[in-house]
Amino acid sequence: MPKTFEPRDPDWEARCRAGFERQPICKTLGIELTRLEPGFCEMRLPFRADLTQQHGFFHAGMVSTLADNAGGYAGYTLMPAGSEVLAVEFKVNLMSPAKGEVMIARARVLKPGRTLTVTSVEISMLDGGVEKDCAIMQQTLFCQAPA
Amino acid sequence: MPKTFEPRDPDWEARCRAGFERQPICKTLGIELTRLEPGFCEMRLPFRADLTQQHGFFHAGMVSTLADNAGGYAGYTLMPAGSEVLAVEFKVNLMSPAKGEVMIARARVLKPGRTLTVTSVEISMLDGGVEKDCAIMQQTLFCQAPA
Amino acid sequence: MPKTFEPRDPDWEARCRAGFERQPICKTLGIELTRLEPGFCEMRLPFRADLTQQHGFFHAGMVSTLADNAGGYAGYTLMPAGSEVLAVEFKVNLMSPAKGEVMIARARVLKPGRTLTVTSVEISMLDGGVEKDCAIMQQTLFCQAPA
Amino acid sequence: MPKTFEPRDPDWEARCRAGFERQPICKTLGIELTRLEPGFCEMRLPFRADLTQQHGFFHAGMVSTLADNAGGYAGYTLMPAGSEVLAVEFKVNLMSPAKGEVMIARARVLKPGRTLTVTSVEISMLDGGVEKDCAIMQQTLFCQAPA
Repeated sequence: MPKTFEPRDPDWEARCRAGFERQPICKTLGIELTRLEPGFCEMRLPFRADLTQQHGFFHAGMVSTLADNAGGYAGYTLMPAGSEVLAVEFKVNLMSPAKGEVMIARARVLKPGRTLTVTSVEISMLDGGVEKDCAIMQQTLFCQAPA
Repeated sequence: MPKTFEPRDPDWEARCRAGFERQPICKTLGIELTRLEPGFCEMRLPFRADLTQQHGFFHAGMVSTLADNAGGYAGYTLMPAGSEVLAVEFKVNLMSPAKGEVMIARARVLKPGRTLTVTSVEISMLDGGVEKDCAIMQQTLFCQAPA
Repeated sequence: MPKTFEPRDPDWEARCRAGFERQPICKTLGIELTRLEPGFCEMRLPFRADLTQQHGFFHAGMVSTLADNAGGYAGYTLMPAGSEVLAVEFKVNLMSPAKGEVMIARARVLKPGRTLTVTSVEISMLDGGVEKDCAIMQQTLFCQAPA
Repeated sequence: MPKTFEPRDPDWEARCRAGFERQPICKTLGIELTRLEPGFCEMRLPFRADLTQQHGFFHAGMVSTLADNAGGYAGYTLMPAGSEVLAVEFKVNLMSPAKGEVMIARARVLKPGRTLTVTSVEISMLDGGVEKDCAIMQQTLFCQAPA
């Protein structure tokens, strides 16, 4: 189902990057926006020992935080100027422990809609320089149209 | 489907509380374990501006972090001595913005199994002293039996 | 989170029952609408050997068919006159084999919204006259407003 | 995440096809097993008016029935001789109405495990001879090992 998309807002990139900058949580956790294309977003979270569970790996909540954020911005690239994006729901399957140096989330829009957008997000870990699948997310987004 | 459960491990409470203490992320974010019963767990996260999204509310990733953690410990109360708990998957529906002073997650075991446990987690916000529904989660846990 | 709801359409019951009658699949499978209240719906599916999987129990697809239908009508009771209801997504956790004489789905609205409604559906089996939990569903519905 | 997999059971294909034949529901609904490879399964369901909802399209329950079945057999190809496959949970996002002549589900294993297997299933509709995305599913399977 990979696709190419035509943004409705010519200023989509600046709008998305500005939105990302306004999220205090991204600075707090250290989330980086590393790629942004129409219908696609990659974010990274370098390892931090203070964000781990009892085995020393990233907590599953960090997996879903990074994935939800990446999915939201993948969808937001295709939304109109003046809109806001909200997550309606998401579901994560955790396939391997989030072990390694950097967590990477790559989000793709599967279905952009006027009101609802569906994304798929692949989450992997760079572990010893090798990238390994870690989790997968399906997400629904809501586009709050400009008033 | 509310139920009462008989723990298999007489020392369930000390085991669960010790496990909770070993999670660095809980200290980092400020997650508190506020109730623990066989098959039930409540956790709270007091508001922090540095964990918010662009509108100043808790980020959806914090909702799933608190809910996943509470669900995991609800299930862990019923697991045998020497076991470990892992989240297999979870799904969150975000019903209202996570706005207010304290986020509360209440997790109940729906089905405890030898290998897999299913939980349901209700997430609410204390907002102006009034508690409001915020989100709901369905979660599957894996019990790693003692070697 | 159990609640009482005030329907927006005084004719909600007739509208919902008429909608149910227009679904060919319900007649084909034998689905019965056994309770309908504002924000609540119960449906039943008597056992049929030709709807089973390889072990002689109801197929998981039948669990989700019954649950999705019940959830849809629970939500539809609260929607305005002239609207249509569509499922956006649903997630099912299968807790026990769907073994027995009758499958029962009880759906409750957790959050009714102008556009999106969230429901929770409990699915059980009457087995030897005793009712046993079988599965649980979280579902999002879309309200297509009248033109 | 596309991958190639090495089946553990040299007789995987005959085992899976025999399992598929033992499901009464597939004959009842008209589900066809149209491709089977290690870690992959395609199933098809030709349109039938008696399996539709009120708008004359396939009911969402049929989407999940076909997708769950395809996912189950994709996972079963990689399970050992003598094992049984059970669905633990699945989540479906319905992206477009299931309108057309044939519904197609293509299921891929993302993560095969000794106990748990994760699959992703794409569901499309052949409509006027053109294939269109319809829905997507994430699913967890349980492998019941031989006694």
